[in-house]
Amino acid sequence: MHRSRVYAVLFDTPEAEADQAAAFWAAVLGAPARPVPSEPQFTVLHEALPGLTTVVQAVDDTPRVHLDIETDDVEAETARLVALGAVQVAQWLECRVLRAPGGHLVCVVPVHSAPDVFEAHARRWPAPGEAE
Amino acid sequence: MHRSRVYAVLFDTPEAEADQAAAFWAAVLGAPARPVPSEPQFTVLHEALPGLTTVVQAVDDTPRVHLDIETDDVEAETARLVALGAVQVAQWLECRVLRAPGGHLVCVVPVHSAPDVFEAHARRWPAPGEAE
Repeated sequence: MHRSRVYAVLFDTPEAEADQAAAFWAAVLGAPARPVPSEPQFTVLHEALPGLTTVVQAVDDTPRVHLDIETDDVEAETARLVALGAVQVAQWLECRVLRAPGGHLVCVVPVHSAPDVFEAHARRWPAPGEAE
Repeated sequence: MHRSRVYAVLFDTPEAEADQAAAFWAAVLGAPARPVPSEPQFTVLHEALPGLTTVVQAVDDTPRVHLDIETDDVEAETARLVALGAVQVAQWLECRVLRAPGGHLVCVVPVHSAPDVFEAHARRWPAPGEAE
């Protein structure tokens, strides 16, 4: 058994336009934009969406939106998504990048939320052959 | 003064893969997939994300994710986003499709939520020159 939940919605934005995009979404959503000092590619939009972390991420790629799924077992969650039809396309530190059926990207990441938030909201997924 | 809130997250999916994508996201998010009988391009993923409507939409285009912003004044909300840097790229019934700085799409739509949900969660935006 392992657990997971949607942790974040990320607006992946071409690097040259990322500051402008962060300012736009902060104003549109009424959410203060807070750069992440240790990870300058990320700007968090504080409480922009209910119960989710909302981030503008500067990327060297075309614009897209992806979800981050946090989990207490990255291997097991990645295997669950692959069994459902996703394909792993990259690995970055502890994060796995998968392409979903239909073409969207989704990342599987270790737990980022506070323990009580994860505990309250994560879904439980039995291992193959394990009873629910 | 008008009001708006993020109403929905839509997974726009090439038509040929939309059923497969809906089944994948329903399983990944543990959210029953419910087709919308009157609008066959939409499959709602019931309670997939907290406080938001989550939808797989079949489109004749490449995969992307976009937000729907619901509002009690489509003209005023569209004008607010345009003043912040968005560009209107299409109009479909009462919905406006805009391209945000950074390249993401966002739609402005009339209120879709129950009145009490909109009342409780919408933000108020003063008209230009109006006091907050």
